[in-house]
Amino acid sequence: MTTETMYAVADFCLIPVGLGRTSVGPEIAEVQRVLAASGLEYKLHGYGTNIEGPWDQVMKVIGDCHAAVHKMGAKRIATDIRIGTRTDRDITSGGNAAKVTRVENILAGKE
Amino acid sequence: MTTETMYAVADFCLIPVGLGRTSVGPEIAEVQRVLAASGLEYKLHGYGTNIEGPWDQVMKVIGDCHAAVHKMGAKRIATDIRIGTRTDRDITSGGNAAKVTRVENILAGKE
Amino acid sequence: MTTETMYAVADFCLIPVGLGRTSVGPEIAEVQRVLAASGLEYKLHGYGTNIEGPWDQVMKVIGDCHAAVHKMGAKRIATDIRIGTRTDRDITSGGNAAKVTRVENILAGKE
Amino acid sequence: MTTETMYAVADFCLIPVGLGRTSVGPEIAEVQRVLAASGLEYKLHGYGTNIEGPWDQVMKVIGDCHAAVHKMGAKRIATDIRIGTRTDRDITSGGNAAKVTRVENILAGKE
Repeated sequence: MTTETMYAVADFCLIPVGLGRTSVGPEIAEVQRVLAASGLEYKLHGYGTNIEGPWDQVMKVIGDCHAAVHKMGAKRIATDIRIGTRTDRDITSGGNAAKVTRVENILAGKE
Repeated sequence: MTTETMYAVADFCLIPVGLGRTSVGPEIAEVQRVLAASGLEYKLHGYGTNIEGPWDQVMKVIGDCHAAVHKMGAKRIATDIRIGTRTDRDITSGGNAAKVTRVENILAGKE
Repeated sequence: MTTETMYAVADFCLIPVGLGRTSVGPEIAEVQRVLAASGLEYKLHGYGTNIEGPWDQVMKVIGDCHAAVHKMGAKRIATDIRIGTRTDRDITSGGNAAKVTRVENILAGKE
Repeated sequence: MTTETMYAVADFCLIPVGLGRTSVGPEIAEVQRVLAASGLEYKLHGYGTNIEGPWDQVMKVIGDCHAAVHKMGAKRIATDIRIGTRTDRDITSGGNAAKVTRVENILAGKE
């Protein structure tokens, strides 16, 4: 198992620091553009963005987001990442979506 | 400004530790039931749950989730919480949803 | 088990947003002053502060830190909290320190 | 600015899931061994480990920690990472230590 092949299901929240304004919408929009260009699965929510793929690719694209937001003018950026891997299942996509479906099925009494 | 009145927009990911199984679906479903009973706004996503309300209430309900999951049998629980407050806007609901809408509008060229 | 009595071992990293400067030292110093006044156990490290105590007290003091940093002028604050509870041990202090000692002992071949 | 050269100051907390025991000391000790072998700066604290270095190297070594803990038998692992980058200072070491010193100096009235 290497970080090239290990599949990671993740979520991250990037925060520009020191911008002189409380709104960070333009920066988070840029993050979404970087993610779209990466080809990885991702989905924005209210306090971060779900993302998944091979470990190295997920981590590189989050770093690319830092570089892109620095390029917009942010001199400091702080990000929180949650990331999970597992060896009991061989998933290559849909990891975050499957977790939501599973919980919804339990709540609906379907399993 | 006190923790009773300060409005918090948050997100958390609760992880039962030491269960002897990798699936945590039943525990996360129970978390959703506790949140539903709280009356606070919340929304499940792939790697956590958005939640918002007055600081003390948000924190108490996350603690109630710990208590409920311990009651199901988990002897150890680790949670990651992201929580934000602001004084430049007087919001009392829809904080997480508004953040998503803002970014989507920017991406769509609407602002 | 209630949030009043449940003992929590935690760590948090508070980030003022929109200050117009990248340095956040004065705000983190104020956080340490609020923690000192709380009477709870805490310890600063390079990317956050360990803190522990009854769940409600830990969460209230982190909220007090938000209120204090808002009072200093920060209009938006984002915090990341890691928090753990367990029912297999009855600890009332020293939770974070004990975790470090345990790992150091294993590395030293003492257990 | 690329993820190869961008300097990152970080902190992470790795949690093995589904082990059937609440203690995770042996796994965290293994994490420290992987970090020691990496040559990067790191320091264990009560709820995680400070680490810093070039972005790609920091992220690869955290992934190596996942691989090593999976090899010990953990079938699922969840990690929380805080990571920061900045363009206003050209640091290549001591980032986490400098943050602690700065806050201690402010508290001591030295700046």
